[in-house]
Amino acid sequence: MTHPWWLNPCQQADLATAEAASERQRQLTKPAGSLGQLEQLVVCLAGLQRQLKPQAERVWVAIFAADHGVVAEGVSAYPQAVTGQMLQNFVTGGAAISVLARQLGATLEVIDLGTVNALQLPGVRHLNIGPGTVNFTQGPAMTAAQGELALAAGREAALRAHTAGAQVFIGGEMGIGNTCAASALACALLGCPAVALAGPGTGLAAAGVAHKARVIDRALARHAGVTEPFEQLLALGGFEIAALVGAYLGCAQAGIAVLVDGFICSVAALLAVRLNPSARPWLLFAHQGAEPGHRAVLEALQAEPLLALGLRLGEGSGAALAVPLLRLACDLHGQMATFAEAAVADRPA
Amino acid sequence: MTHPWWLNPCQQADLATAEAASERQRQLTKPAGSLGQLEQLVVCLAGLQRQLKPQAERVWVAIFAADHGVVAEGVSAYPQAVTGQMLQNFVTGGAAISVLARQLGATLEVIDLGTVNALQLPGVRHLNIGPGTVNFTQGPAMTAAQGELALAAGREAALRAHTAGAQVFIGGEMGIGNTCAASALACALLGCPAVALAGPGTGLAAAGVAHKARVIDRALARHAGVTEPFEQLLALGGFEIAALVGAYLGCAQAGIAVLVDGFICSVAALLAVRLNPSARPWLLFAHQGAEPGHRAVLEALQAEPLLALGLRLGEGSGAALAVPLLRLACDLHGQMATFAEAAVADRPA
Repeated sequence: MTHPWWLNPCQQADLATAEAASERQRQLTKPAGSLGQLEQLVVCLAGLQRQLKPQAERVWVAIFAADHGVVAEGVSAYPQAVTGQMLQNFVTGGAAISVLARQLGATLEVIDLGTVNALQLPGVRHLNIGPGTVNFTQGPAMTAAQGELALAAGREAALRAHTAGAQVFIGGEMGIGNTCAASALACALLGCPAVALAGPGTGLAAAGVAHKARVIDRALARHAGVTEPFEQLLALGGFEIAALVGAYLGCAQAGIAVLVDGFICSVAALLAVRLNPSARPWLLFAHQGAEPGHRAVLEALQAEPLLALGLRLGEGSGAALAVPLLRLACDLHGQMATFAEAAVADRPA
Repeated sequence: MTHPWWLNPCQQADLATAEAASERQRQLTKPAGSLGQLEQLVVCLAGLQRQLKPQAERVWVAIFAADHGVVAEGVSAYPQAVTGQMLQNFVTGGAAISVLARQLGATLEVIDLGTVNALQLPGVRHLNIGPGTVNFTQGPAMTAAQGELALAAGREAALRAHTAGAQVFIGGEMGIGNTCAASALACALLGCPAVALAGPGTGLAAAGVAHKARVIDRALARHAGVTEPFEQLLALGGFEIAALVGAYLGCAQAGIAVLVDGFICSVAALLAVRLNPSARPWLLFAHQGAEPGHRAVLEALQAEPLLALGLRLGEGSGAALAVPLLRLACDLHGQMATFAEAAVADRPA
């Protein structure tokens, strides 16, 4: 592959529209800057959507699920069967993201990249890229062909969202063991040891976290020579992490704003930006979660997340929880009166 | 007044219902604790509403407005006429809180306790307690009779909300100069000098903040002997701040959960708890704003706000922005499947 699709340039934000939106913010009946982060958010969204009054009504949520070979090392609090059981729960409406998508009026699609037991669940897109990844302490997590398929699966979700007219894209993930893979990838991308980033994931106690860090350090030593981002993804990633990378790059190329969820999604975002830096402006960050490595990844991205509620659920749930802030920021921007319209005195310049 | 109404006991949370809600949270298909602050929030709300599945659908927003004599000292970035102009903007729908209340389907009422120019605006409750407060560097901001009227006006708003079946009450404020009054009150309540708490309010530059701090220190020296909370309110408060205190206490006595907005509302919340500590469980805190004194006031209340977006608008806007988080927390709690219902394996105990 001399020039893979993910290196193609991303759409550019319209700076003139962003500046016009910023000027409108200054004219609304409130002290300048008093809506804080919501002002920067809506100005950014105006530039991305090329609209003076942007919108966040049509939201597309794609959940990517897969299994992880590294679970054989005992790095998760939950049994691996939970990945498949939760796929069922997503489509029958009982999972957190199912409830959130319903309340937000968002489209929810569920994509199974590859689990240990081949499943056939109505309402799930089963791609069968493999029976989970290989245990990456023993070799690369996936082949190049598998990595390309997973990236392409993410891009296809972005293109479905684009065809449906989505204004905001949320990627979510499910995969027992995937904080281990994400932590390993983050260590490789940031050049730091596992102890700096590994955390409890879904609920390991201190001894479990220490063991997970040792497993990650073994994997980092095994793949120490791998420095190119795509190769790092193959060595240490997961199918759902690769799909998130592909989805974010697909959104940035198609021109859909992305609301990035928690730790695992943020690692995918960092990898996407390493592969193609022109994707960065399309990534808005929903929250800083409880996983200790999240802060370091967000700092590397110079991200300023909207929420910090101690979330550690995944599934895109934190991004979904931030959607009302985007919507209300757009409503305020679009519907508030200007000083002139309301005959309110602005402060002296 | 031997036993004013605000000393009457507040409703008590139902600990058995809160415990049942906590047990339900542990059974939902997610890692235990993975919804972070939202879990504590919904458990708390269950106890307050005495319902296993609490709700935050019916929201009542009362905006209290008044003018401040201390504006004569040059402590605000905006002219005093803006208080009245913004009252008009609230009822005609162009203000931030007007947009937010509309989008949230919340009831919005606007109460003018007393402005420098007596106004007659359709849709506003004008109470005419006085032409703004007295400049509190020269004497008490208000008389005891005025303070009692303002507290009662807040309580009456809470009772209207209760009669209408409100599940959440938001108090907002508008009054040019009121961060100065709130900072002075906070200094008196917390026993700290003005320099520790005074901030830019709606937009003072550094020299303006320093001047405001000197004005507050003069007022604190003038009223140094005043240590009883009701007397502190009369000495340094504002009509709208007193009304917020009355509203919070009225809600706690009637049994309505309160979502406290920014700095000025948090100072009113602190005063309410000093007057009647049994009100504390009814106060949920929406956000930590940009005003530097807000953190100290929240810490004194042991409050853990939901948002930190750098807001400094007032009007109840920060509390309104947090309403979707309450609603989604209730939806998740009420609608997610349990491990048993979804046949998902819980982790080993």
